[in-house]
Amino acid sequence: MGYIYFDNAATTKPLDNFLDNKLYSNPSSVHEFGINAMEAIVSVKKYLAEKIGCSHEEIYFTSGATESNNIAVLGSNNKSIITTKNQHPSVAGPIKALHQKKSTVKYLDVLGGFLNIRELEYAIDQDTTLISLTHVNNESGITEDIKKLGFLIKKNNPRALFHVDGAQSFGKFEINLKACNIDLFTFSAHKIHGNKGFGGLVINKGVNIKPLFYGGQQQNGIRPGTEDAMAALAFKKACSAAFDNIQKNYQHAATLRDTMAALLSEIPDCVINTDLENSSPYILNASFLGIKGEILLNALSEKGVYVATGAACSGRQVSNNLIAHNFPEGHAESAIRFSFSRYNTVQEVELCVSILKGEVKKLRGES
Amino acid sequence: MGYIYFDNAATTKPLDNFLDNKLYSNPSSVHEFGINAMEAIVSVKKYLAEKIGCSHEEIYFTSGATESNNIAVLGSNNKSIITTKNQHPSVAGPIKALHQKKSTVKYLDVLGGFLNIRELEYAIDQDTTLISLTHVNNESGITEDIKKLGFLIKKNNPRALFHVDGAQSFGKFEINLKACNIDLFTFSAHKIHGNKGFGGLVINKGVNIKPLFYGGQQQNGIRPGTEDAMAALAFKKACSAAFDNIQKNYQHAATLRDTMAALLSEIPDCVINTDLENSSPYILNASFLGIKGEILLNALSEKGVYVATGAACSGRQVSNNLIAHNFPEGHAESAIRFSFSRYNTVQEVELCVSILKGEVKKLRGES
Repeated sequence: MGYIYFDNAATTKPLDNFLDNKLYSNPSSVHEFGINAMEAIVSVKKYLAEKIGCSHEEIYFTSGATESNNIAVLGSNNKSIITTKNQHPSVAGPIKALHQKKSTVKYLDVLGGFLNIRELEYAIDQDTTLISLTHVNNESGITEDIKKLGFLIKKNNPRALFHVDGAQSFGKFEINLKACNIDLFTFSAHKIHGNKGFGGLVINKGVNIKPLFYGGQQQNGIRPGTEDAMAALAFKKACSAAFDNIQKNYQHAATLRDTMAALLSEIPDCVINTDLENSSPYILNASFLGIKGEILLNALSEKGVYVATGAACSGRQVSNNLIAHNFPEGHAESAIRFSFSRYNTVQEVELCVSILKGEVKKLRGES
Repeated sequence: MGYIYFDNAATTKPLDNFLDNKLYSNPSSVHEFGINAMEAIVSVKKYLAEKIGCSHEEIYFTSGATESNNIAVLGSNNKSIITTKNQHPSVAGPIKALHQKKSTVKYLDVLGGFLNIRELEYAIDQDTTLISLTHVNNESGITEDIKKLGFLIKKNNPRALFHVDGAQSFGKFEINLKACNIDLFTFSAHKIHGNKGFGGLVINKGVNIKPLFYGGQQQNGIRPGTEDAMAALAFKKACSAAFDNIQKNYQHAATLRDTMAALLSEIPDCVINTDLENSSPYILNASFLGIKGEILLNALSEKGVYVATGAACSGRQVSNNLIAHNFPEGHAESAIRFSFSRYNTVQEVELCVSILKGEVKKLRGES
């Protein structure tokens, strides 16, 4: 039986044969086979650097966005941090750990998922060392104007580091890191049909970073551990497929999202939680009032429709991230996240909503 | 053109089609597709637990041995550490960092690569919290009697944690972690023809571990980040191929190693650096006196023979690990590490030595 996969913000289907190269040698080996692997990795970094506006020497590959966010937060000058209340656990977690130990932290409120720019400006002072924000929120799709924020941050304190978690925007939104004044940028492969266990952190030249862990001299010692040319080349394939058609993919997602939003309006007491003008078309967060998100998720799963309540990593609980969005009362508990990829179709959206209609009726005791 | 790959201690050729499953869903997603992925991961842990003598709930998957060693050292009770001077950088590095900050560390000398058991017993006191040792040394192949050491450690201080870096022994030596009194055990996939970026740490139940980084609640929060069922299943394939034929593979490596050792004796001033009785047959460390290891490595590489001087992660330098072995003077500088896998053949060994003979003569100005 087929299924409908609308959980692409959790993870995506890897490209077919994404790992079909044979460059398995250890890139730190100094024989020819090792040198070839290292050259391949550098070539991938050069490719990526051009796409996102940085130098290839500023790119560090990691095991994924969780590790990247932790390196950015735990490894940088983190004496005085500003962030928002609706961060992913991999940003909120290390900040909380620092807060308990030694750092001062200002948590900005968000309203409907958005930070208040005046509040941000007010919070920045000359002691601020790190401002950690998310480009596209993983649960709601709410999208901040990163360029505008970067400009404001540097205007108020040029020494404050600007960290952006780009896990949900990378390969989906065009971005130029330098133009956005971003010092630390997190990206992930498996959110764009790449390999799990692979991601990275861009570290602006001149930013001093302490590693999370120690080992060989790989990646300047910032991120030790055997490097992986096969994975880097697989990641490049995923990047090419994303960046080469970034506008077309974006339009496709927008068509899916807008179709879904229109069709959902036919379901009573179904509300779209986000400002569609300022959120990623890859994510649609809606609430079916009076029905717990988890109950509806399970009902849909039995019909082969895979969605999420919030982030996958929150499992069955309503996440703090979503609660912090300050949606109207009752919305977070009944929220469903639909997240799309270029492999989804309008037909799947239509079928999903038709199944939804039946399940919602059933759960409300109307059928 | 073909080549001879004798650098299997650095990394190994992945099994053909090792990643041919399609279980790409996020194991933390609570729909059916996610649950299937989580069940697959648990099944891999159960399989492995039986092979190495632990509970599946004690196995934590990581990005590899470097991260695992760091979790073991940085995350455990590390107030008072005992280790040897010839550790891999991913053990030596975090211990050094702790030593500079807050921990007391006793570094045991090694002679010919071996620790002195009396010195170890003498070093253990009631304050000792962590003893971190390696099963098979990655540069020399020197193999410690882990069961005997585990017994001695617990006899002298039952509360001291015993960490074993098993990166070079896992899947090659039969081991039962409980029988060896091991509390923390590091393993890696890519050293046994598995996937890079995948490994793990076994943490004995009851051992309190602080994570290196923070995020979702994956793996009890000890190791957050999106889990990867595809990689876990690929790793299981590599494990099966290793464990199902562990004796046969071992014998094959021994045949290669012993053949090589015998043939090397025909080369003047070539010395085997290790006690073959007490070292892994997968690694042979030999010195060609008077010739710098790196020079010979490059000459061999040009002929399509890929070997190492020491660990890949030390790059071109003579590693501290090898120097600490206390081989006779001049041996470390001229050392070559040949490391074998089940895919290597006796014919390759013969061809390698015949090429070696020519290159050594050339470099000594004898031809």
